[in-house]
Amino acid sequence: MTKTLKGIAASDGIAIAPAYLLVEPDLSFLKSSVDDVEAEVARYKDAIKTSTTEVEKIRDVAKKSLGEEESQVFEAHLMILNDPEFTGAIENEIKDSKINAEAALDETAQKFIQIFESMTDNPYMQERAADVRDVSKRIMAHLLGKELPNPASIDHEVIVVAHDLTPSDTAQLNKKYVKGFITDIGGRTAHSAIMARSLELPAVVGTDSITKDVKNGDMLIDDGLDGVAIIDPSDDQVADYKKKGEAFLKQKAEWKKLKDEPSVTADGKQFTIAANIGTPNDMPGVHENGAEAVGLYRTEFLYMDSSNFPTEDDQFEAYKKVIEGMNGKQVIIRTMDIGGDKHLDYWDLPDEMNPFLGVRAIRLSLKNEKIFRTQLRALLRASAYGKLGIMFPMIGTLAELRQAKAILNDEKQKLVEKGVKIGDDLQVGMMIEVPAAAVLADQFAKEVDFFSIGTNDLIQYTMAADRGNDNLSYLYQPYNPSVLRLIKHTIDSAHENGIWCGMCGEAAGDNTMFPILLSMGLDEYSMSATSILRIRSLMKKFDTKDLKELANEACFVSETAEENEKLVNDLMKKIDK
Amino acid sequence: MTKTLKGIAASDGIAIAPAYLLVEPDLSFLKSSVDDVEAEVARYKDAIKTSTTEVEKIRDVAKKSLGEEESQVFEAHLMILNDPEFTGAIENEIKDSKINAEAALDETAQKFIQIFESMTDNPYMQERAADVRDVSKRIMAHLLGKELPNPASIDHEVIVVAHDLTPSDTAQLNKKYVKGFITDIGGRTAHSAIMARSLELPAVVGTDSITKDVKNGDMLIDDGLDGVAIIDPSDDQVADYKKKGEAFLKQKAEWKKLKDEPSVTADGKQFTIAANIGTPNDMPGVHENGAEAVGLYRTEFLYMDSSNFPTEDDQFEAYKKVIEGMNGKQVIIRTMDIGGDKHLDYWDLPDEMNPFLGVRAIRLSLKNEKIFRTQLRALLRASAYGKLGIMFPMIGTLAELRQAKAILNDEKQKLVEKGVKIGDDLQVGMMIEVPAAAVLADQFAKEVDFFSIGTNDLIQYTMAADRGNDNLSYLYQPYNPSVLRLIKHTIDSAHENGIWCGMCGEAAGDNTMFPILLSMGLDEYSMSATSILRIRSLMKKFDTKDLKELANEACFVSETAEENEKLVNDLMKKIDK
Repeated sequence: MTKTLKGIAASDGIAIAPAYLLVEPDLSFLKSSVDDVEAEVARYKDAIKTSTTEVEKIRDVAKKSLGEEESQVFEAHLMILNDPEFTGAIENEIKDSKINAEAALDETAQKFIQIFESMTDNPYMQERAADVRDVSKRIMAHLLGKELPNPASIDHEVIVVAHDLTPSDTAQLNKKYVKGFITDIGGRTAHSAIMARSLELPAVVGTDSITKDVKNGDMLIDDGLDGVAIIDPSDDQVADYKKKGEAFLKQKAEWKKLKDEPSVTADGKQFTIAANIGTPNDMPGVHENGAEAVGLYRTEFLYMDSSNFPTEDDQFEAYKKVIEGMNGKQVIIRTMDIGGDKHLDYWDLPDEMNPFLGVRAIRLSLKNEKIFRTQLRALLRASAYGKLGIMFPMIGTLAELRQAKAILNDEKQKLVEKGVKIGDDLQVGMMIEVPAAAVLADQFAKEVDFFSIGTNDLIQYTMAADRGNDNLSYLYQPYNPSVLRLIKHTIDSAHENGIWCGMCGEAAGDNTMFPILLSMGLDEYSMSATSILRIRSLMKKFDTKDLKELANEACFVSETAEENEKLVNDLMKKIDK
Repeated sequence: MTKTLKGIAASDGIAIAPAYLLVEPDLSFLKSSVDDVEAEVARYKDAIKTSTTEVEKIRDVAKKSLGEEESQVFEAHLMILNDPEFTGAIENEIKDSKINAEAALDETAQKFIQIFESMTDNPYMQERAADVRDVSKRIMAHLLGKELPNPASIDHEVIVVAHDLTPSDTAQLNKKYVKGFITDIGGRTAHSAIMARSLELPAVVGTDSITKDVKNGDMLIDDGLDGVAIIDPSDDQVADYKKKGEAFLKQKAEWKKLKDEPSVTADGKQFTIAANIGTPNDMPGVHENGAEAVGLYRTEFLYMDSSNFPTEDDQFEAYKKVIEGMNGKQVIIRTMDIGGDKHLDYWDLPDEMNPFLGVRAIRLSLKNEKIFRTQLRALLRASAYGKLGIMFPMIGTLAELRQAKAILNDEKQKLVEKGVKIGDDLQVGMMIEVPAAAVLADQFAKEVDFFSIGTNDLIQYTMAADRGNDNLSYLYQPYNPSVLRLIKHTIDSAHENGIWCGMCGEAAGDNTMFPILLSMGLDEYSMSATSILRIRSLMKKFDTKDLKELANEACFVSETAEENEKLVNDLMKKIDK
């Protein structure tokens, strides 16, 4: 029977395909003693055989669809399944302790994992621990008669349905066949949402119950434009949504024509539309979507994707690659935002009661100067290869900003003395995301070259509501007049002091937010690369003279976020007429 | 050897006395099997005997110093020590399982505690579970040859030294002999600091290492005026600090003379100095210190000190007691601020990643309307007995305020229809503690009768720094110009809309903050009762005409908290000359 779920529109587009449930089954078991040991060993050997056949099949599919390199992990799994040291140990444990195969498997696997993981200076053995864990999970599933999701073996078009998608989940997906995502939880700033936009896949998040409502293979409509998921749609619905999807693709093709055009309003005012990136690998998307700058390079991924602190040279190479890749267009690189919800396996930081209100970003950098100085040296050296802006995150007080700048200048001095070339166009700026910094933007503007407003955090602190807390999603209000007043004060303060102001939070690529920001005169709009052409197209519709009053009305006349949504909707209706 | 520790001055005064370490010893043990069972039973019986003698002694001291009622808990402990069902079960466990007494004690005690705790509808049995836990801890300490702190048995003057003080720690203290507190962690808003001020005891918090640096009985100087702790002071130091203590007491005696005087400035402008309270038991302190109102009654203690939700009548009685006790002076009662760091044993709320940015205070009330309506009915009924103000905490949007007011009006309507009398002077107000509410204070002011600024939370959200996180205490900046601008905007907005504005955070009773607030025209200053006369005395020193420029300078000229501290210090020097 047809069922419609309302969620949050997290990534544009329409997909129609069968559901693929990426949900781990419950693999808990009871330990028991067995009388018929031979029968238990036979049952165990069966599970090994089925697992082996299954992994071989996955490897073959993965080799074809993902390539030789990506399929290597399954060769490693097969080696473990064929390793008598491992499989024999489990068999002996069943025989010696007369316990069920599940218990023998679990105990033996734990032992192997512990041994491998204890070899902390050997990354190869660390990977083997992960392999043993994956293989054991598969054998366990077969022993318990449960089905494990095998995302790598997907060989037909599907819509992936999950409670939530983690970075490791999406890494395993065969993106060729994945047509969209639908999840139970999350908002527009969740990993799954950001990933969907970067892959240009439609996504609906926060449906609450999709994993419970849908079965593997159920037909699904995934409407990422309006945040709707339809299970078992009628033929009429399928036809309607096909049309809607085609219209969207047509519009997207129109947008693609704007790739090499400047970002201008109807009355010819020019602004910068920039891209947010996480690694140098994101550069092709930046170029394909005609970004006029990189407005935010999140360097924390350099640290998170590594098994130890990246060296100065590793960092230098990554920064240089992005700066050179932009051919003289500006690149804003943010110093690491570690802490909060982002942790490193190799850096043991104290547990905090409220990590979002804790020692994160610049606070952590200032407390760990050696690590900070390494990053600054890499940035300074890379500055010679193009137009770099160094940006400090989570600045809350002038004292913090001055301290960070003093350390930067100290490293610069030392490099200059050594004869290292520093870029002439180097700018130094800060994020505006702590409410205190927004309130005092007029004072901060005197001491930096630019601002970039981080709306995700600015909103959560201004509203005092964790943006990851599903029970408070109603308080994540980008259009709340209080948030808009802080943004307006930041932009006005920048201009009064002759510096430029950008925005690199999700709000910069939001259709409703955009006209308000344009009305405030925001200079640079930095967003997921895949949003750039949509916003460039939207920009062409506006005459800035018609927007003169919008900012003041949104900040000082409106009382709620809902009123501001209506205000912009009414304006768009007038413009589209 | 003399050692001086710098901490945070948390409560005024000087104490000189030996240290009393309120630190629990490590009671962990290893389970082992025993061969000589008889010897183990004898060792166990010895521990029971020593524990009994000890508890009898504590009971006798407690009866004399704390009174009959407070010593009852030790009678209960003795009953358990003499109960063959409990002690016999442990003895049998040693004999039957041939295990060491520590393991037998632990296993048996856990069983008893579990049984008692499972009787959730029987508060008597719940208390027995706590008793078994306390008694077992004592026997365990004797088995392990360790000393347990016995705060109830203190029979001479001491300074209590602890890592941190919890409400249950302070409840056990014999306050007659406690001359002061010194702790490792915490700030001015920690429980230990608030408790010290309410008991009028000097306190230094956040010394980092006092529990490690001091031994039981070491002589200590506890300087709560300047935040200094001295271990093993020299004779000269003792003499100097005695003088400093006497000078402070003399000043305090001067302040006492102001008890029945109005709160006026040198040029005759009158303001209200009010008290913050947690329970009706705090009323004697309110009267002794000449409070002109209760500016904040924190009702969450009614819920926290109870084993189930307080009934409407229980609440009505508590509210009425406070309102009647004030004889027509205003009482501001805040609806429950549960959630965040305040939890109830009987209310299972979901764990949150960032509780301070979570579902707390009015957010929780609006999601649990039944519990909220019970509290509102109790408040409305109590309003007939004096001058009540109902205050909503953590309001972030106009939608929340309107929803809370609609529920209040609905309950009021229903009570009026039933013929219940509602006070004519009833006011409805809100806390300003979410930055969004401070920024939009001009809009909120149109829909309430008063504001009360909650600086503790407003500061932590504006600075995006957990006020309980010791690694970020440098960011808890009441004098930061950003915080001051939000406060000024709140006060100005109140006055432009003809309503009054108070402050009930710790900052209202702070000597440096006070002149700035006076310069802004804050109407009501609500603080720990013991701070009232100090602030009333301070108020008399100022001519408001001389303060005209201070607020603007602190908000718009100063750039850092340090500059504002200097600004006020310089002003005070001029005035004191």
